[in-house]
Amino acid sequence: MIDKLVEEIRKKQAPIVVGLDPQPEFIPPQITEEAFGQYGETLEGAAAAFFAFNKGIVDAVADLVPAVKPQSAMYEQFGVPGVQAYKDTIDYCKKKGLIVIGDVKRGDIGSTSAAYARAHLGTVRVGSKTYAPFDEDFCTVNPYLGSDGIRPFTDVCRECGKGIFVLVKTSNPSSGELQDRLAGEQALYEIVGQMVDSWGADLTGSSGWSAVGAVVGATYPETGKILRKMMPKNYILVPGYGAQGGKGRDLVHFFDKDGLGAIVNSSRGIIAAWQKAPYAGFGADGYAEAARKAVTDMKQDIAEALNG
Amino acid sequence: MIDKLVEEIRKKQAPIVVGLDPQPEFIPPQITEEAFGQYGETLEGAAAAFFAFNKGIVDAVADLVPAVKPQSAMYEQFGVPGVQAYKDTIDYCKKKGLIVIGDVKRGDIGSTSAAYARAHLGTVRVGSKTYAPFDEDFCTVNPYLGSDGIRPFTDVCRECGKGIFVLVKTSNPSSGELQDRLAGEQALYEIVGQMVDSWGADLTGSSGWSAVGAVVGATYPETGKILRKMMPKNYILVPGYGAQGGKGRDLVHFFDKDGLGAIVNSSRGIIAAWQKAPYAGFGADGYAEAARKAVTDMKQDIAEALNG
Repeated sequence: MIDKLVEEIRKKQAPIVVGLDPQPEFIPPQITEEAFGQYGETLEGAAAAFFAFNKGIVDAVADLVPAVKPQSAMYEQFGVPGVQAYKDTIDYCKKKGLIVIGDVKRGDIGSTSAAYARAHLGTVRVGSKTYAPFDEDFCTVNPYLGSDGIRPFTDVCRECGKGIFVLVKTSNPSSGELQDRLAGEQALYEIVGQMVDSWGADLTGSSGWSAVGAVVGATYPETGKILRKMMPKNYILVPGYGAQGGKGRDLVHFFDKDGLGAIVNSSRGIIAAWQKAPYAGFGADGYAEAARKAVTDMKQDIAEALNG
Repeated sequence: MIDKLVEEIRKKQAPIVVGLDPQPEFIPPQITEEAFGQYGETLEGAAAAFFAFNKGIVDAVADLVPAVKPQSAMYEQFGVPGVQAYKDTIDYCKKKGLIVIGDVKRGDIGSTSAAYARAHLGTVRVGSKTYAPFDEDFCTVNPYLGSDGIRPFTDVCRECGKGIFVLVKTSNPSSGELQDRLAGEQALYEIVGQMVDSWGADLTGSSGWSAVGAVVGATYPETGKILRKMMPKNYILVPGYGAQGGKGRDLVHFFDKDGLGAIVNSSRGIIAAWQKAPYAGFGADGYAEAARKAVTDMKQDIAEALNG
């Protein structure tokens, strides 16, 4: 799957992933009204609004970007109907030819991590039948529990041709509280970076990139520079662009000299573009076109930074 | 909720939580057959078998223990129907008067962590209505992203009278890869232990215990001793008893001098007791009675260790 991701990034000339992290306040009123009209002010109604909203965004950007990243939390907050909308979103995006990175940040140990890996990337047996429960192409994983928590995921990556992005240095202000701690000569994020390199060593595809990638926030460009060198075969998923403050020029360090090695996420900067300048002119009815324009602008911002 | 947990532990004289972590191989054949008979060999069938199995266990142990801990991964592996069984299990356990600790190990940043907190412990607005999506009493949380990831949970704890258990030192063999790293004079788990103490400082209930607890594995009793002292007001949820090798005598250090301050989890040692000596005599039909006997034995093992 990492080979397909690299190929699609090349083909579309867009190292960009659209974060499908809807919040009720991002949804244009006409979509909410229609969903509530059909299902009432229920969890089902909220979930239906999310899915309809996502379809509009996906239809508008599918030819421009290689991948989307739905954020599980936003769906879980609407209970089981919300989780159904998460699954429906995954299926819809895959049908549209998009690669799906499930932002689930799961992590546990042994048989429990194996269950998460089956849930999100693999298959389960039910009697004589086999099912792929959520069937994302990639998912994000938390490393705090150590190799026991990661190995079940890499096993499934090998078996099912999927991939993971391990949290290394996250984009938030307090990420350094643990991740920047110096253990001997190294920051904890460097130790995790080395582990990512080793976890992914035998999962390198024909593109030369590994199925095990890393999450490193755009808000820490100097850290990105260090980690890019430490993880020469690991793709970096870069959150924190746009709304969180990361700019195109901050991203240069996350890429290699060929302009590969990183994929940058933007969520509200794209899906909620219609609510802010310079896209407010599209209006609520034009929310999907506003998202398309925001993707085009982001593509240009990154291309200029890489070529500048 | 921490006050209720402490009260129930006292009343039932059982610092024990039953881990509802079903796996298909733990389910007696008669339950699986009935579920498949009704739903076929589908995700719905697997989920129905889990829920029926759980009901049997819960009915057999509800008067003996204060709390249960369903493990989200085991349900997620059966997709949306599995997540529905997770929710049904929570509701059933609460109806039976049990406190529910959702073992979800979620963790993210800012608005995303807030969405997880609402999903599992809080409420969401849908138009003019309010819903409690999963409505566990406690949930487990991963600290790798720092305070930004925890604060949304403590906010919901305050608002809705719920609690969390933060992963500090996990029970698995490789937990030390990151958690034992020395940062200056302190191991990382000590740093996280101090953070747990401070995150929970203004959430202390009438019992004197905080709504913010910690997860510390039974397999590391010496670490438990250190952390018990560092976190004088934080309850410790202790996994790793039984199947993972932790014994009653290892648990002493996790408790304070009054025999409070810790609650010990056992999952397969109880729910799959019927498959192993000395409980195999109960047979598949007696799986729930086997679980009850295993709880009674565990209670005695811990009581002897604490009084010994």
